[in-house]
Amino acid sequence: MTRRAGAAIDEAGVIAGYTTYVDLIQDRIKGKEIIATTMKKEVDRVIAAIDAALSGKKCALISSGDPGIYAMAGLVLEICRQKQIPVARTACDPVPENGLRVEVVPGIPALASAASLLGAPLTHDFACISLSDLLTPWDVIEKRIECAAMADFVIVIFNPKSRKRNWQLQKAMEIILKYRDADTPTGIVQNAMRDRQNVSIIPLNGLDTADVDMLTTVIVGNSTSNTYLDFMYTPRGYSEKYDF
Amino acid sequence: MTRRAGAAIDEAGVIAGYTTYVDLIQDRIKGKEIIATTMKKEVDRVIAAIDAALSGKKCALISSGDPGIYAMAGLVLEICRQKQIPVARTACDPVPENGLRVEVVPGIPALASAASLLGAPLTHDFACISLSDLLTPWDVIEKRIECAAMADFVIVIFNPKSRKRNWQLQKAMEIILKYRDADTPTGIVQNAMRDRQNVSIIPLNGLDTADVDMLTTVIVGNSTSNTYLDFMYTPRGYSEKYDF
Repeated sequence: MTRRAGAAIDEAGVIAGYTTYVDLIQDRIKGKEIIATTMKKEVDRVIAAIDAALSGKKCALISSGDPGIYAMAGLVLEICRQKQIPVARTACDPVPENGLRVEVVPGIPALASAASLLGAPLTHDFACISLSDLLTPWDVIEKRIECAAMADFVIVIFNPKSRKRNWQLQKAMEIILKYRDADTPTGIVQNAMRDRQNVSIIPLNGLDTADVDMLTTVIVGNSTSNTYLDFMYTPRGYSEKYDF
Repeated sequence: MTRRAGAAIDEAGVIAGYTTYVDLIQDRIKGKEIIATTMKKEVDRVIAAIDAALSGKKCALISSGDPGIYAMAGLVLEICRQKQIPVARTACDPVPENGLRVEVVPGIPALASAASLLGAPLTHDFACISLSDLLTPWDVIEKRIECAAMADFVIVIFNPKSRKRNWQLQKAMEIILKYRDADTPTGIVQNAMRDRQNVSIIPLNGLDTADVDMLTTVIVGNSTSNTYLDFMYTPRGYSEKYDF
């Protein structure tokens, strides 16, 4: 956690978040008002957080990773726009009447923590794709996988599988295999930086049977990605230009 | 900076980095041995850092943002592989004879800090592309821009322009405009979280004349990205499924 994120939590009287994440910082938020809701209750949670802030309380809406990457910061702005709540952006601006000041505090996104545990797979162009088709039609997701594979992006896959969504990852693998070698290094990171952390590097064509769940980030290398010992990395191109 | 990154710097006897970044943390590294080199001397710098570590010194190779995203972590592994230097990955593994232990400490990548200053443009699938053709052929870059635009990824553009590379950004804009509306919100962030920070949101078709340099991150919205007051955000899709 950065110092700014810690300070924002400490300054807040109200903490809103997904139950699992609230539990992770229990010791830090003792005595504060808590708005904790489960999965699929994101809209209720964000509305409750906005209402708390409108009532004059400082409210920290927490995420794991970065709050702006596949997370709640967008929904805050979407709801404020829908309800036409005036919002100030910076600490220099006064809080508008009947309005809010919103600060998005960046964090270490899952893509960066997963990459760091694998080595350095993201040192060149990459695309991030969520395989969850709860809010996005599958044909849009499939087109993104196809285009990312075609253009030789390193591909970061979020939400690869859940109990109910069990076929999307295999389908993604099949699409990528049209453009990449079967042995393309593919990193699998479960529970990055948490209990039960698990890191492995497998060939792309083993992805369909890999041990993967909702809390797993998958990183498929591009055509130049390589492994060395227990590491996976993507060259930036220095070896083409310099001798070493 | 995270606590882990701060601790890694404090524990190190040698600090290696691009001169500009070394200067940014001068107060923290007083009295330490410094390996500072300028741009285009990345290979020399990393080799010097590896040599220092092989001589038994703890060495911190610093980056701004995240060291694994378009940064030096990959080059460390590439050079270790080339020179067949044995490398241990975790603190639990013993340091191999004539070898190293490498820990990649994740940071807040520029894409996350830029996004946080704009609002929440990255709450859905996105692609990151560097426009620098120093190490990557332009046709590869152009194909990536085309595919990312075609698949409606939010597009994060790094290294948009320098004194010598002055036509790539306009070309990128023209390609993206084949697939997206002229008024697609486009965020421009210079010197994120540093002196002379500058944040603006413009329509996509104004990108060619925008004030942009090497230290600028550009984020082009997807077909659903929107603005509200001074913010830019990309909906995740909640409003299609829930009333609010």
